Amino acid sequence: MSERPGPTTRIRITELSGSSARERRDDLATEEPLELRLTAPDGTRRTVAITMRTPGHDFELAAGFLHGEGLARHEDIASIAYCTDEDLPPEARYNTVTVRLRGPLPDLPALDRHFLTSSACGVCGSASLDALRDRCAAVPRGSLKLTPEVLYGLPDALRAAQGVFGKTGGLHAAGLFSADGTPMAVREDVGRHNAVDKLVGWASLTGRLPLAEHVLMVSGRTSYEIMQKALAAGVPVVCAVSAPSSLAVELAREFGLTLVGFLRGERCNVYAGAERIIG
Amino acid sequence: MSERPGPTTRIRITELSGSSARERRDDLATEEPLELRLTAPDGTRRTVAITMRTPGHDFELAAGFLHGEGLARHEDIASIAYCTDEDLPPEARYNTVTVRLRGPLPDLPALDRHFLTSSACGVCGSASLDALRDRCAAVPRGSLKLTPEVLYGLPDALRAAQGVFGKTGGLHAAGLFSADGTPMAVREDVGRHNAVDKLVGWASLTGRLPLAEHVLMVSGRTSYEIMQKALAAGVPVVCAVSAPSSLAVELAREFGLTLVGFLRGERCNVYAGAERIIG
Repeated sequence: MSERPGPTTRIRITELSGSSARERRDDLATEEPLELRLTAPDGTRRTVAITMRTPGHDFELAAGFLHGEGLARHEDIASIAYCTDEDLPPEARYNTVTVRLRGPLPDLPALDRHFLTSSACGVCGSASLDALRDRCAAVPRGSLKLTPEVLYGLPDALRAAQGVFGKTGGLHAAGLFSADGTPMAVREDVGRHNAVDKLVGWASLTGRLPLAEHVLMVSGRTSYEIMQKALAAGVPVVCAVSAPSSLAVELAREFGLTLVGFLRGERCNVYAGAERIIG
Repeated sequence: MSERPGPTTRIRITELSGSSARERRDDLATEEPLELRLTAPDGTRRTVAITMRTPGHDFELAAGFLHGEGLARHEDIASIAYCTDEDLPPEARYNTVTVRLRGPLPDLPALDRHFLTSSACGVCGSASLDALRDRCAAVPRGSLKLTPEVLYGLPDALRAAQGVFGKTGGLHAAGLFSADGTPMAVREDVGRHNAVDKLVGWASLTGRLPLAEHVLMVSGRTSYEIMQKALAAGVPVVCAVSAPSSLAVELAREFGLTLVGFLRGERCNVYAGAERIIG
């Protein structure tokens, strides 16, 4: 039977501190897709959004999303329920919320996410990874190796290159570095996915893809979306100042990427691919 | 003539420190929509994405987005250019990027944003605000007033209520507070827009909308999307630990919201609606 996903996910990680390493357990914020479906009394139905979210308060998420987008108010809603159809695989049963409206479907905007999996079989993190496998190969183990010292130097190097952040304090940054920690390019944006897109676009337009010998360093957290962009660019190592989501780690492990988080001072957590870090 | 938008925008703000206030200039990260259009040699064309972004490196953003989504690689691209058609209003001319492909259009995913304005007239921040005006009224001045002391207490109150963040360090939080700083509800999510949706959904499902006497406090930055959700819920005051974008401030000023940022310790910046803060 389906076990309903909780807001946190427990995994084993490697914690580096200075030159020492130890294994320990760690809790991650769970990231799973949620599919939001609307149905009308006449039986018409449509998926209006698929968004990555942390499980919990999902009916509120549905109601708040519909309100914010001007699609339905409280008085328009007859009921909200998880879709637990037998035709959904167990792991997808708490990832689909159906809102029954009292009246007809509103004019609907376009769907809002790109990693749409077939709504016939429901959505779940594993299905999202399966869909990705159709167009992205795992990153080869290759020759890229990094020392902890190189890792520890990345946050300062990223910050030093952030011109606009220095003025505004209001931007996400993403930087590409070589294996010895030399910065290749840094891009900033109010959207963290855009900062990564700009960096990958730079590499694409200058003929550098795949980035098999490079490290991607981001200023914030790592989510499914960031890891998917790294994978598509062939970057084997992704480092972040903050935490990864559960699905970021799952993607990294499935596709052979190294994922580092909480990279601050002389310490970090390695969530996947620790074999690329030497010494 | 159009002035091309830069990565930062200079505005006047009110800085509060303890019980004193002063006016000063401040630089914000610019947030403007970018419309990405594809065209094929046979003349077919389609908009594939409209995303809020910080102007700069826009061709890289286009190329990186297309690569990451598996829609086009470098070798598929014949040229990338700003759309500076005469039929575009000047302020929209650097917000549309057209990628000419060497072959036919790929199978295209759904558009990815909701605040779609007519692509016939191009996109710009002002047009996004105009579109919002069709479905959201300005927030009434009302009776809500806050003291600086209440503001200064919000970040700790939000953090204290963040159960999952304490375990993972990996979540955004959004909280609703009364005018005296009493927490009403706090929600967390890997997506900051989801945390706000959950909160608004809670208010909707419990019959509390519009939230005319409440303050929304978020753990991160404020963008157009967050402010749009606050406006739709009728929240007159939005506070954040970090910086707002230029368009967040523009929205707040146009629709009568109070917007506070860099709320840390006994200081903050007031970007809009300072008249709601007394003393």
